[in-house]
Amino acid sequence: MAKITPLFSLKNLLVVSLALNVSLIWRAMHESEKCNFDSSFSLQQQRRSVMAGCVLKEKEHVSERTHLSLSSSPSPSPSPSSSLTSTDIQSQDGGERIINVDHGDPTMYEKYWQKVGDKTTIVIPGWQSLSYFSDVRNLCWFLEPEFAKEVVRLHKVVGNAITENHHIVVGTGSTQLFQAALYALSSQDASEPISSYPSITDCVKSRLYKWAGDAKRFNKDGPYIELVTSPNNPDGSVRQSVVNRSGGILVHDLAYYWPQYTSITYPADHDLMLFTVSKSTGHAGTRIGWALVKDTEVAKKMTKYIELNTIGVSKDSQLRAAKVLKVVSDSCKPSGSEDECFFEFTNHQMSTRWKQLRMAVQKSGLFSVPELPSQFCTFLGRAFEPQPAFAWLKCEQEIEDCESFLKGNKILTRSGKHFGFSPKYVRISMLDRDENYNLFVQRLSKILS
Amino acid sequence: MAKITPLFSLKNLLVVSLALNVSLIWRAMHESEKCNFDSSFSLQQQRRSVMAGCVLKEKEHVSERTHLSLSSSPSPSPSPSSSLTSTDIQSQDGGERIINVDHGDPTMYEKYWQKVGDKTTIVIPGWQSLSYFSDVRNLCWFLEPEFAKEVVRLHKVVGNAITENHHIVVGTGSTQLFQAALYALSSQDASEPISSYPSITDCVKSRLYKWAGDAKRFNKDGPYIELVTSPNNPDGSVRQSVVNRSGGILVHDLAYYWPQYTSITYPADHDLMLFTVSKSTGHAGTRIGWALVKDTEVAKKMTKYIELNTIGVSKDSQLRAAKVLKVVSDSCKPSGSEDECFFEFTNHQMSTRWKQLRMAVQKSGLFSVPELPSQFCTFLGRAFEPQPAFAWLKCEQEIEDCESFLKGNKILTRSGKHFGFSPKYVRISMLDRDENYNLFVQRLSKILS
Repeated sequence: MAKITPLFSLKNLLVVSLALNVSLIWRAMHESEKCNFDSSFSLQQQRRSVMAGCVLKEKEHVSERTHLSLSSSPSPSPSPSSSLTSTDIQSQDGGERIINVDHGDPTMYEKYWQKVGDKTTIVIPGWQSLSYFSDVRNLCWFLEPEFAKEVVRLHKVVGNAITENHHIVVGTGSTQLFQAALYALSSQDASEPISSYPSITDCVKSRLYKWAGDAKRFNKDGPYIELVTSPNNPDGSVRQSVVNRSGGILVHDLAYYWPQYTSITYPADHDLMLFTVSKSTGHAGTRIGWALVKDTEVAKKMTKYIELNTIGVSKDSQLRAAKVLKVVSDSCKPSGSEDECFFEFTNHQMSTRWKQLRMAVQKSGLFSVPELPSQFCTFLGRAFEPQPAFAWLKCEQEIEDCESFLKGNKILTRSGKHFGFSPKYVRISMLDRDENYNLFVQRLSKILS
Repeated sequence: MAKITPLFSLKNLLVVSLALNVSLIWRAMHESEKCNFDSSFSLQQQRRSVMAGCVLKEKEHVSERTHLSLSSSPSPSPSPSSSLTSTDIQSQDGGERIINVDHGDPTMYEKYWQKVGDKTTIVIPGWQSLSYFSDVRNLCWFLEPEFAKEVVRLHKVVGNAITENHHIVVGTGSTQLFQAALYALSSQDASEPISSYPSITDCVKSRLYKWAGDAKRFNKDGPYIELVTSPNNPDGSVRQSVVNRSGGILVHDLAYYWPQYTSITYPADHDLMLFTVSKSTGHAGTRIGWALVKDTEVAKKMTKYIELNTIGVSKDSQLRAAKVLKVVSDSCKPSGSEDECFFEFTNHQMSTRWKQLRMAVQKSGLFSVPELPSQFCTFLGRAFEPQPAFAWLKCEQEIEDCESFLKGNKILTRSGKHFGFSPKYVRISMLDRDENYNLFVQRLSKILS
């Protein structure tokens, strides 16, 4: 990281290449060719990739959120208090209801938060948090000290990241932080339009950075930024940098490096790490993410970007996120807590869902899901197979277009072709509410060859 | 507005010129020449201006927020419950304390919200607002229906804007909405890098738009966007479009069109109007703004920008803002309320502050402030002179550099040169807490020629 400043202050820099193995951030951000609203969507490059030439420009990318909002038959959103049994669902369904498992809305987590009850309730009086400022002594002047404290504590409790010698920069979701990182790591002196993240570059037409495609195929000269997403989305595998050239800067998207999804095997200690409450605790609606940044100048520039973009980050949501993280840490105290440890509960939820999926796949005989090696989790003290937030489902036999095939069965998914894979694959969200998920696995199990 | 779509879908569009008379948004957004952190700050172009060529590029612009955070002697932030009398302040002071009236942090409003007490308190349980989505049936899918309802109601109560036939787009402050508007109104097909808002264009180096300077001097061919800020910041005057050419699109920044600052003389019914809670109710820390947009395609594109930028807007803050707006509307019910009408209270606060300032100016004899014509306010039912959120103070006699002169008296302000005016002028925030403001007017009154 110490190399960044001299490296990127060179004038006449020709290419900044950005390596991305895209996950939450990219999942949420997409490209529509001319940034128009269009009813033909696609979406999310999910592989480890390198940015350097808008190679994705030919495709139409629209966010999963737009997808849902524009869907002519959106799946209904049952109230959080809905507690239908499988039998209720089956009798209600009759195979007619459209099941949307395309988008990654983390409503599964409502169950834990309802169980915990009032502990996570936040109360904000009308006269509080009027000022723009949270902490004028902090490099990131809009960072609520209470939120910063709970971020540090949670990483210590879980053991998934080192916070010492890192600055914390808060963002309006990790999406904004990713843009802030691109801004901070790109040269402001570049003599020509260079590059960008497909959604951002092509829409805002930045001359600082551009998407360069898959990292495995990246072979250009010049500096580049590689985004390592680990565990990976959609296949859940644990990743490391692949470009292996000098002049590179790594951004680690660790949105899914939490014990409900994957074994914690070491405390990550990278130069720039991104996290978000959307995938760790399920609070997507609060729009809170955080970056752990070693280099002071990079942290300052990221702060500057967020200042220019939104003049800071909602204090209300930071205070709420602080409370949520506190309750998570409290629930997992080694001395025990009156609540079940959040990660035990959600690890169990995910484990159950993956078992249901594998049973449905087996029963049908038309599909397969990847087997990933079991690893020992230092946090939970046991070994388990990865249980990713998205399932990477393959249609077997003669089915070439898995997305269309499932659509014929009123199941909306996202085709592998949007992730650079074969259309025999689809990506399936594992984070929806029980009602929707149970309906999905039941429907799937009944699709017979 | 109907013209926008055909106008901007022309290929090979050569120049998009953007007219800005910058206010809250611009106040909050600034340019540092190479977007580096720099200890020499300046400020906010505040005049009615046209964007078309990065003419401000020579200057260093850093936000007032950074200014405060980087200030070596930031003014202390007393707790909201602080209720020092003038005598206390005087005895505490001794002329040694640095008084910062440079930045526009609206902490003055804490007083009303403390007075109202629990009515504006918001309670959010931990299981609420987990989803990304607020209303999948709405064009702006992340807009909380409750917030939208209260926006409509408040405009009806105050009579300052027409909401019928407008879409509401919510943003992370009006700063983000302004960028969304630029994005929506600029052509995605432009054949060459065109233009931008100094802070945004020059930092993110967009090829879609660029700042073209003062609207009065704008005489280029081609389409342009003119930002009309009314009442204007810093001088409080009521403004209208000045470019008066075909091919123009107007964006109205009405952040200060509320009865505490200026008389409401008509319900504004423009194509694209921007508002923010930061200046209307003082809740800057919530980062909530809203746009009223006539054209459906423009509203869709603005929504798209915010989706790409931050995947929506904090639900917690929207819910809080909804509650705050509701309490404001309730307090001003024609049938009467147990609380004093918010706008009566804050109009009185501002009136008192302006009287204090004029008295101090008179007592000193070294300064002057503009006299603005009184107008009848349809909301308050009486005529009053504008009492802007910023005072536009002039140093008389031989003082050429008013900012430096006041700095010598330990009063930090923002020089007129940063707004394209003479350095004989400075801008002064009128929205700080009583303690700081009272100290300021006392100090000013004692500076004698």
